[in-house]
Amino acid sequence: MSMYVNNLLRQAKESSFLMTGLTTKQKNKALKYMAEALIKKRGFILKENKKDIAAAKKLKLKQSFIDRLELSDKRLKEMSISLKEVACLPDPIGSRITASKRPNGIKLEKVRVPIGVVFIVYEARPNVTSDCVGLLFKTSNVGILRGGTIAINSNKAISRVLRQALKKSGIKFPVFFMVEKTNRKTVDELLREDSYIDLVIPRGGESLIRKVVETSRIPVIKHYKGVCHIFVDKAADITKALNICINAKVQRPSVCNSVETILVHKGVAGKFLPQLKRKFDSFGVRMRGCLQTRKIISGIEKASKIDWGTEYLDLIVSLKVVSTLEDAIKHINLYGSRHTDSIVTNSIPNADRFVKGVDSACCFVNISTRFSDGYQFGLGAEIGISTDKLHARGPMGLEELTTYKWIARGSGQIRT
Amino acid sequence: MSMYVNNLLRQAKESSFLMTGLTTKQKNKALKYMAEALIKKRGFILKENKKDIAAAKKLKLKQSFIDRLELSDKRLKEMSISLKEVACLPDPIGSRITASKRPNGIKLEKVRVPIGVVFIVYEARPNVTSDCVGLLFKTSNVGILRGGTIAINSNKAISRVLRQALKKSGIKFPVFFMVEKTNRKTVDELLREDSYIDLVIPRGGESLIRKVVETSRIPVIKHYKGVCHIFVDKAADITKALNICINAKVQRPSVCNSVETILVHKGVAGKFLPQLKRKFDSFGVRMRGCLQTRKIISGIEKASKIDWGTEYLDLIVSLKVVSTLEDAIKHINLYGSRHTDSIVTNSIPNADRFVKGVDSACCFVNISTRFSDGYQFGLGAEIGISTDKLHARGPMGLEELTTYKWIARGSGQIRT
Repeated sequence: MSMYVNNLLRQAKESSFLMTGLTTKQKNKALKYMAEALIKKRGFILKENKKDIAAAKKLKLKQSFIDRLELSDKRLKEMSISLKEVACLPDPIGSRITASKRPNGIKLEKVRVPIGVVFIVYEARPNVTSDCVGLLFKTSNVGILRGGTIAINSNKAISRVLRQALKKSGIKFPVFFMVEKTNRKTVDELLREDSYIDLVIPRGGESLIRKVVETSRIPVIKHYKGVCHIFVDKAADITKALNICINAKVQRPSVCNSVETILVHKGVAGKFLPQLKRKFDSFGVRMRGCLQTRKIISGIEKASKIDWGTEYLDLIVSLKVVSTLEDAIKHINLYGSRHTDSIVTNSIPNADRFVKGVDSACCFVNISTRFSDGYQFGLGAEIGISTDKLHARGPMGLEELTTYKWIARGSGQIRT
Repeated sequence: MSMYVNNLLRQAKESSFLMTGLTTKQKNKALKYMAEALIKKRGFILKENKKDIAAAKKLKLKQSFIDRLELSDKRLKEMSISLKEVACLPDPIGSRITASKRPNGIKLEKVRVPIGVVFIVYEARPNVTSDCVGLLFKTSNVGILRGGTIAINSNKAISRVLRQALKKSGIKFPVFFMVEKTNRKTVDELLREDSYIDLVIPRGGESLIRKVVETSRIPVIKHYKGVCHIFVDKAADITKALNICINAKVQRPSVCNSVETILVHKGVAGKFLPQLKRKFDSFGVRMRGCLQTRKIISGIEKASKIDWGTEYLDLIVSLKVVSTLEDAIKHINLYGSRHTDSIVTNSIPNADRFVKGVDSACCFVNISTRFSDGYQFGLGAEIGISTDKLHARGPMGLEELTTYKWIARGSGQIRT
């Protein structure tokens, strides 16, 4: 282990033990101080951000990349509001999950505690820095943050401002660490230190996540992609199905919970698909269809096998006619990404079969896939959406950033 | 991927989808059939087990190894009873964890579902085979089992008997798979297939577990070791402290929840340690002490730094005098294995500080560390004790073998 990594990890571990001493009141006060500091020091942060923007332009990076990198008064305001919102959420730490009294008189409790040290690897989006600091601090976790290299000046500036605010609010030890050595080797080193780091959350594109999973010896919670489906059942209300399909594709196509493939029962395809095409045409959505789809609606592109597993994140959709509900479920389990899938149907047995048979984090009935979201679920905030099955599945709120311990109190009991 | 692994995984995945169709009644009936079959077919199983015993003896393997490998009428009876007990436990699958109605009318539920395909890697202990089959089947998970090479005939025999019983009870598809290719390459191959296998549980010694963690791309829940502590506080009841220390070390020294290090507050060491030594001497326990301990009780071995991290699993104990409660907590967090640690004290604030400050799965007050156990906690059965922090911590029962999905039902809602 390099000296740099060793120092970082020892400090992070030590902080993680001190974190358990903080009260909810102390944490909420510090969150409000941090929120205010982002506004007060916006001049400094924006100045540093301009350096990163200039570097990105010099490298001729894509405009969409620069958009995500760029900070503004408006974006800083949003970051500040997010921190204030996290301060208002209930603190899960210390809450009792279960309690029982054993026949031998031992009182047993299962209590929520922080996970410990959490390593977040993300892309060049400086707003993620303050979001993660807020969520991890509220749950008494120590964060190690490694944002995209090109955002280093912005991230350093935000970190400095947040750290000063924490200090001013009375927090006497570091509660998060920014990895300022931006070489790949440092990240790889950190990913192997499972005795110091308890969890890794990679946030970004599929290739970043695959790389983290390949290298890490530490448990990873990840979100590979969102290949979400809508199945329009034979027993669907056609108007609802049209509204839901349009909303799920068009309202915000660039996000993971937008729909990518629409499966249509053959018994309703002849009626539904022409109406869907007219709608999609009016919104400029490109359609790619299976053979049967193209027999019903002509003039659209052919869908290949690759389409069924593709997250377009764009105004493109693939369409497939299926013979049965079971075929729809099979298709989703084979090609989907276990993220979010919705059935449109008036049949309760079909809805029940769908939500039982589809192996996804979120199984919906008669609603848009776009509802797969921590805020929509009432979790208050969200650090991401897990497509994994262990620990956290679907939208991850504050509770998903905690673990538990068993506490047992007795009066001298021994085992016989 | 080899043809063998590919076939195995495709079948396992297919079974995992069929599992969601089984009712609790069907599962319990099959568990009882399996329990009975182990008794009825004991002649066949014991005959096959003899082949493994002969092979182990030929290889001059240790007697303790052969003891774990050997089956008997008594052990088969125990295996059978375990399956019947699992049949009697409540089925966690399908139970509702939370439910809410969102302001937009969407009904949201979080429901327990199987994890999917679980790969268990274990040593040459054939009783583990039927235990794992029972627990995974009850939770509607598909098991892939890879037991120690030398137990292959026993494991094949048990699998055959269980499979016949499952069929007879009406289960029409395979619900578990025994890896019969016992080369290391096959295990390594399986450990990389994270699109087919959802969870790996290694059961065995630390080296087996480290190897699995090094190779696996699939989430692993593991139990490295149990370096458990007892801290005898200044405010301890000396009689209770003596009883607890003796029980935790002597009652069954070979198990993970026995105590390995006893920390004694300096304010009570002069009084406590000589009494403890007399007791330990009478039970033949070898003591290794720090400098201060050896000033109080002479004639014991010196403890080195290595002792503080050692799981003896034997009638050996290390002893250390500490100046404060905080020093005890620091020692445990530095050298412990996050398994189980107990404080003996009459001070409630000290007890509270201990259970908050110690970062272990089980934090106990005034009881023996030996209570860290699924049955003692009322979980009914246990697949292991996790020293990890994610998904499952401490004793793992049936619930810990499940995950959840979000189910949302609406009436055509779209996002605006």
